[in-house]
Amino acid sequence: MEDCGEDGQVKLLGVIRSPFVVRIRIALALKGIHCEFIEEDVLNNKSELLLQSNPVHKKIPVLIHNGKPVCESMIIVQYIEEAWDSKAPFLMPRDPYDRAIARFWAAFIDDKVIPSILGAFRGQGEEQQKAVEESVANLLLLEEVLRSTGKAYFGGDGIGLVDIALGGLLVLIQTVEKVTNIVLIDTQKTPLLSAWADQFCKADKVKNAFPDRAELFAFLSARRAKLTSPPPGN
Amino acid sequence: MEDCGEDGQVKLLGVIRSPFVVRIRIALALKGIHCEFIEEDVLNNKSELLLQSNPVHKKIPVLIHNGKPVCESMIIVQYIEEAWDSKAPFLMPRDPYDRAIARFWAAFIDDKVIPSILGAFRGQGEEQQKAVEESVANLLLLEEVLRSTGKAYFGGDGIGLVDIALGGLLVLIQTVEKVTNIVLIDTQKTPLLSAWADQFCKADKVKNAFPDRAELFAFLSARRAKLTSPPPGN
Repeated sequence: MEDCGEDGQVKLLGVIRSPFVVRIRIALALKGIHCEFIEEDVLNNKSELLLQSNPVHKKIPVLIHNGKPVCESMIIVQYIEEAWDSKAPFLMPRDPYDRAIARFWAAFIDDKVIPSILGAFRGQGEEQQKAVEESVANLLLLEEVLRSTGKAYFGGDGIGLVDIALGGLLVLIQTVEKVTNIVLIDTQKTPLLSAWADQFCKADKVKNAFPDRAELFAFLSARRAKLTSPPPGN
Repeated sequence: MEDCGEDGQVKLLGVIRSPFVVRIRIALALKGIHCEFIEEDVLNNKSELLLQSNPVHKKIPVLIHNGKPVCESMIIVQYIEEAWDSKAPFLMPRDPYDRAIARFWAAFIDDKVIPSILGAFRGQGEEQQKAVEESVANLLLLEEVLRSTGKAYFGGDGIGLVDIALGGLLVLIQTVEKVTNIVLIDTQKTPLLSAWADQFCKADKVKNAFPDRAELFAFLSARRAKLTSPPPGN
């Protein structure tokens, strides 16, 4: 076993373009935890290590800390906070009520924001229009959260759980906007979210966790072209 | 404001037969926290208090602690643990890794077990058969968790987060079994889960949190009859 320092041995199984993996890389970067990133070929050839580490879902990301696997991105982020709880910055509030609210919005992003944005990416015509409206309505609710707290981040003055949940998606959202020519986060409709996005993208440590925009654009453009092309034989 | 004692004022908005509400009632009962239960008419007439307390999802359960609402059942259970963290029993492990594993299985119950069991309840013919197979496969994974830990409860020697997540569903599962004549938890296939269910149902404090079995049977029988009856006009 290699020498791992005080943080122990940390491996991350993932795909660099996955927003769920970006969340983990942001959390680790903020806490200053070094990890060995192991790129998975999830489409064609999942590794034995991935299948063994996440036998239930067989999905990335998986964080392996001193040989013990943790799965599911927001569970991993909470694990990172709790396993390195003496390490600043704190990714979750100390107050139990504020923690519950942070978990609520993080779950909202997973349960509502992601499906609506994927619908906008994958859909056509009326179906797509409906998904765009849903996406905007969901993002407006997040705009209201920022307005009500009056802070730059969902986590207050610093990046927290909800920022990581949404921030992990940010490059994906912006690339979906470019590929589909649809505006989701907007200086007119969602000015605070728009300012949040600008600030988040530039935040120290965070920016290196993002996937390459050009590569993601090429990947999503190809996917979108496949979705919108007529079926073979037509 | 009424005198609330050291636990503060705790209200629970819910419907007594909802498994998500049962989870909260179990957690509160275990911690010995008194709450005012406010029955909601979610089908016909949601209260102003519910709509104000959970404007995003407009769903029960909502726990209101000293005027501040918390939504989403497993977020509420974690809130109960953290807000009354000095009160035994502890519903979550102290170790960060064990907490992550508990959250993983609680999420598995929400994301996989519930949809498969609802599919078994609602489905017909082949579709139902597939949902039953999925339900059994999911429950077998939980059987393996109990086997690997060698303890009576998912939480070890005492009831914890995963026990509450699954235990809240227990009367529902057993009633679905009766209504559909399908066996899901079985002394042959899932002997440990079967023993767990027996023990959980009899556990002190827990049993009073369950809905009335006869009422739930009548409610689900009527729902199932509606689902399986031919559409009007046929």
